[in-house]
Amino acid sequence: MAKDKNKKPMRPKALPPKGFRDYFGTDVAQRNAMLSQITEVYHRYGFDALESPAVETVEALGKFLPDVDRPNEGVFAWQDEDDAWMALRYDLTAPLARVYAQFRNDLPSPYRRYAMGPVWRNEKPGPGRYRQFYQCDADTVGAPSVAADAEICSMLSDTLESVGIPRGDYLVRVNNRKVLNGVLETTGVSDAAQQADVLRTIDKFDKVGIAGVTELLGKGRLDASGAYIDGVGLTEMQAAPVLAFLTSKGADASATIANLRNAVGGSDIGLAGISELETIGELMAAGGYGSDRVEIDPSVVRGLGYYTGPVFEAELTFEILDAKGRKRQFGSVAGGGRYDDLVKRFTGQEVPATGVSIGVDRLLAALREKGRMDEIANGPVVVTVMDRDRMSDYQTMVTELRNAGIRAEMYMGNPKNFGNQLKYADKRNSPVAVIEGGDEKANGVVQIKDLALGARLSAEIETAEEWKKQPAQMEIKRSDLVAEVRKMIARAEGLK
Amino acid sequence: MAKDKNKKPMRPKALPPKGFRDYFGTDVAQRNAMLSQITEVYHRYGFDALESPAVETVEALGKFLPDVDRPNEGVFAWQDEDDAWMALRYDLTAPLARVYAQFRNDLPSPYRRYAMGPVWRNEKPGPGRYRQFYQCDADTVGAPSVAADAEICSMLSDTLESVGIPRGDYLVRVNNRKVLNGVLETTGVSDAAQQADVLRTIDKFDKVGIAGVTELLGKGRLDASGAYIDGVGLTEMQAAPVLAFLTSKGADASATIANLRNAVGGSDIGLAGISELETIGELMAAGGYGSDRVEIDPSVVRGLGYYTGPVFEAELTFEILDAKGRKRQFGSVAGGGRYDDLVKRFTGQEVPATGVSIGVDRLLAALREKGRMDEIANGPVVVTVMDRDRMSDYQTMVTELRNAGIRAEMYMGNPKNFGNQLKYADKRNSPVAVIEGGDEKANGVVQIKDLALGARLSAEIETAEEWKKQPAQMEIKRSDLVAEVRKMIARAEGLK
Repeated sequence: MAKDKNKKPMRPKALPPKGFRDYFGTDVAQRNAMLSQITEVYHRYGFDALESPAVETVEALGKFLPDVDRPNEGVFAWQDEDDAWMALRYDLTAPLARVYAQFRNDLPSPYRRYAMGPVWRNEKPGPGRYRQFYQCDADTVGAPSVAADAEICSMLSDTLESVGIPRGDYLVRVNNRKVLNGVLETTGVSDAAQQADVLRTIDKFDKVGIAGVTELLGKGRLDASGAYIDGVGLTEMQAAPVLAFLTSKGADASATIANLRNAVGGSDIGLAGISELETIGELMAAGGYGSDRVEIDPSVVRGLGYYTGPVFEAELTFEILDAKGRKRQFGSVAGGGRYDDLVKRFTGQEVPATGVSIGVDRLLAALREKGRMDEIANGPVVVTVMDRDRMSDYQTMVTELRNAGIRAEMYMGNPKNFGNQLKYADKRNSPVAVIEGGDEKANGVVQIKDLALGARLSAEIETAEEWKKQPAQMEIKRSDLVAEVRKMIARAEGLK
Repeated sequence: MAKDKNKKPMRPKALPPKGFRDYFGTDVAQRNAMLSQITEVYHRYGFDALESPAVETVEALGKFLPDVDRPNEGVFAWQDEDDAWMALRYDLTAPLARVYAQFRNDLPSPYRRYAMGPVWRNEKPGPGRYRQFYQCDADTVGAPSVAADAEICSMLSDTLESVGIPRGDYLVRVNNRKVLNGVLETTGVSDAAQQADVLRTIDKFDKVGIAGVTELLGKGRLDASGAYIDGVGLTEMQAAPVLAFLTSKGADASATIANLRNAVGGSDIGLAGISELETIGELMAAGGYGSDRVEIDPSVVRGLGYYTGPVFEAELTFEILDAKGRKRQFGSVAGGGRYDDLVKRFTGQEVPATGVSIGVDRLLAALREKGRMDEIANGPVVVTVMDRDRMSDYQTMVTELRNAGIRAEMYMGNPKNFGNQLKYADKRNSPVAVIEGGDEKANGVVQIKDLALGARLSAEIETAEEWKKQPAQMEIKRSDLVAEVRKMIARAEGLK
């Protein structure tokens, strides 16, 4: 028999890999517009652009270096020709650490950089959960001052308003890991493993609420599924400061601060954290950022385990309907905080850093949900082809329109069926179709058709003759083409 | 002895993988500005955005599916958890084919799309040769008309002028594969392998010139290295049409067309190709694109082997000095053509397509070379920290400046050494530094410093007192901060 090679090849499937997707037209334009708006704010705040490659050595990415043969847990990784492992970046912070370590002698200090672009996660995809998505980060490296953290909070607030989230529909909430460290001191829990258990329990606060955390810090809790979850085993007295911390948000900043002082007792680290929160509050007030935009909220627990100082989270506070039709808050669209071990892996030195990451895709979803997305989509004027020997005539009209800044094109498909040309124009959301048959040419006129008006009828119209009878069609002088098309587009815009 | 695990880990190298690089500040901003300019033209021409993922199945990418275990020749590829091969896209055309095949029933026909983004090549990196670089493509799928090709040519011309290449510094050159097919018919070479040899030889025209091609089509040629390269073995008579084709560019389009007619003899396919070139010429003329912008040039050979109809290439015609100090033309920055097998692998159907790819990085290099890049870089106004207990005061100034649209920041490093603050401002290309010590605060004034003027001196200045003596420094009322800073920036801009 013949070799395998001679088998007729199967046709490849026309699909992207699982968990990846395509973005078309308006979706791309809207994201680019948002990235530009964010860039403008980041730039105004003094941050400089950095674009690192999509690919890093696995060694430089670091946290994915287990003792296994294929270190691709969570990342897409492969070996190059020298057997070195490379991987797609999973966030924009790990590349920043590599870049800062590499160029630290040449970069300004502090180094303020923003970065935006896709990141990749080798995780199980799910509904709305993709393995490639955009992040949009800003970080200040080498700034120990809490003023750097405060600045990130005001920038986050300005950014959200700049992309179209009005004041009142979002809140930047600030907490501090140092306060939590003070709370842990006050509990008297000194065993590292038990401290980690407490941290993990706090992380569940968003899900299980204060009653759930109370049970989990103590003996344990019966899960919703009926399973019994063992508790951390703290006494009530030990658990009290943690619960006080999580519920210490008061009517205003000073009430919250007073509650926090009770929670940390005399702990130095705890008091230092509270002092940082106070400073952030003062700087916010000085900048005119009231508690309707940025507030201190000790119930923010996301990232408390990872960060070393202030932690921030931006939430959209309006309600949407979830997949099951229940009302819920839209939730988090950005998060960040202070981390002091950014480049230590590379250089051995601790370098303080603070930053934020905006989830651009979630933010876009939120704006779409609220109907606040500008209709960037505008279809091209379509110059139809009535006589295929006069393509130059049609192309000249298109060129005139384009030179006047009007989006326009000649129909490029087979011109035989005029109905197909109009169906094409509809599919492209064309505002105007231009028609010039032999008679029009002879008389120095063209027909222009308001397609927004005529859209409902177009499916039934097969010939140019029928088309001419529609009310939305006008005969104009050929020499007035640009002016009349512009008028018709403006009228259609006005009707939206 | 202990296990391997207990070995102290080596510090990772702070380097990107070989062949990858980072882009900072102005480089990123300039590329984004160029991509926006190109997008504007593509959009005005009626093309819609498409953003496909960086990752495709190797099956869908297609041309990299050899009978080997690791199909990563030329691409970065890896196996996912189901053992399926995935790879980073190596261009934007292969993903377009997959997308068109997948969504062909929903997309408008013809489908006009543009795409821009990085692509990846697993090739040996070299000087100026990176394994990740940007492409910027526009393609029309499903348009058999040569008008679609002509449009690509005028769009390419408009795009180059839009990004800052003046007329006269570029040329879009057009050739046609069908004409070459006609030439091949005329030679009488019918053996497929020998035809392929002729094509490969023509591809060397750019390098070896007409004399070299003449030798290589005949008996062979002594290489520059002294090696003898065997020729294709055509007789002089057989080679004559090929040589006539390559040298058929005349003084104007009609002279070129006449020369081409001689080269193709009576070949139908050749005459069809010539007719297409004539139509492109007519459409160009109708649109006002003269031969100083788009011209028919049968010496364009790049891509002739790959494309099936018209082929185009955009060249920058000005001279630069190469690495060895010799004058040479900058050369090609974009290329494209017609290819009719775009989706056949997926669907079995032939779908005509034509398009262009712009090498954005080369185009940026050309503009930098000619000093035609706008100075997008403008550093932030730096508000210095004279008294670390008054950060709110400084932050308030920064907020006022930012709210007025002025790029500004407070110094975030350790404020102890005032000289470091000024060195930082210099490194950031700050136009203005703002200084408010205790005395100024008491008197309701601030010092503002023109750093462009003072830059040369700053390295020697260590204290705020010395600094105040510099001529470029002004004392202004605190309440005039925004107005005076704006004036100083405007003055500095004017001096550039």
